[in-house]
Amino acid sequence: MTYPKPLRRIVVLLSRLPGIGEKTATRMALHLLKMPASSVRELGEAIAALPDAVIKCKICFNLADQDPCAICADPSRTDRILCVVESPADLVPIEKSGAFRGRYHVLGGAVSPIDGVMPEDLRVRELVERVSSGGVEEVILATNLTAEGEATASYLAQALQPLRVRVSRIAYGMPVGADLEYADEITVGRAIRGRRELG
Amino acid sequence: MTYPKPLRRIVVLLSRLPGIGEKTATRMALHLLKMPASSVRELGEAIAALPDAVIKCKICFNLADQDPCAICADPSRTDRILCVVESPADLVPIEKSGAFRGRYHVLGGAVSPIDGVMPEDLRVRELVERVSSGGVEEVILATNLTAEGEATASYLAQALQPLRVRVSRIAYGMPVGADLEYADEITVGRAIRGRRELG
Repeated sequence: MTYPKPLRRIVVLLSRLPGIGEKTATRMALHLLKMPASSVRELGEAIAALPDAVIKCKICFNLADQDPCAICADPSRTDRILCVVESPADLVPIEKSGAFRGRYHVLGGAVSPIDGVMPEDLRVRELVERVSSGGVEEVILATNLTAEGEATASYLAQALQPLRVRVSRIAYGMPVGADLEYADEITVGRAIRGRRELG
Repeated sequence: MTYPKPLRRIVVLLSRLPGIGEKTATRMALHLLKMPASSVRELGEAIAALPDAVIKCKICFNLADQDPCAICADPSRTDRILCVVESPADLVPIEKSGAFRGRYHVLGGAVSPIDGVMPEDLRVRELVERVSSGGVEEVILATNLTAEGEATASYLAQALQPLRVRVSRIAYGMPVGADLEYADEITVGRAIRGRRELG
């Protein structure tokens, strides 16, 4: 004997989520049984409704509850700078930083031949079309600072070159609060080469 | 701007589960959006249906999909030995061990005055009634080996004393594979006092 079948089914379904092993899934499922039935139904119904409730903005492809999304619809932001990110999650820290008041373009991933992701699987064509239609003066490439993100940035820089738009890449360097003693030498090297004059 | 409202709502609801912080909940919610809508609905509906699908066995109070549960209904198990556990999760490793072929009684927690859990909040009365009705020769107290579990075991031993039934407690000792060097002295002390003659 183990747990009742409906409980085991939840454990199987929850274990498919990232970062959730069988033990965590079991703890979660057992906790659901201790919660008021109304709260459990609320969670279940919210999950079931999610695919229809969240849409993709047709301009920037960010997750949204309206189309165009709140960022694309915001008249106080500039259309002249476009920030390209891999995924909707990457956009959140940029927004939190307050350092950017332009528009976004969500690629939907990074080029990764090993995972079978090629440029045509990303929203590169849509980016080129958007920039071609005019009004954009600078494209900031904010793909991740990984091998895949770098390859994607290089690919995009080439793809955008004929459009005579300024293309920039977010800076490499030491994170705020970092200790040099524990930093990897590649990051330190980039931070030194990317040094800025003070005063 | 952050994530769309339906997504934020899922994050809030998921964060209430044990072991799920806001970051994990966000990662889970974003993953749900990448999954096929049918799988997300399947998960949501399974969760929403859980409170009605899982019931408590009226004999042992274990989680069950039928009443009486599979263990209480199993004719190959003996009624003469009753194993008392705090929660349904505690029963699983005992079943996996294969060391026990009697019936169970799930208390629903342990006595813990600091958390406001008193004996009358647990299924102690039901245990006493079950043992009083006859047929039980031994009650194994398998509450946790914590202060609360010990207090509960002591309380139950007293409550069962007038019923002239054998009451036992699962053994303290070193876990299999444990290294003495890293064991705490209280466990080692218990393992020495609980030593068994060999051969």
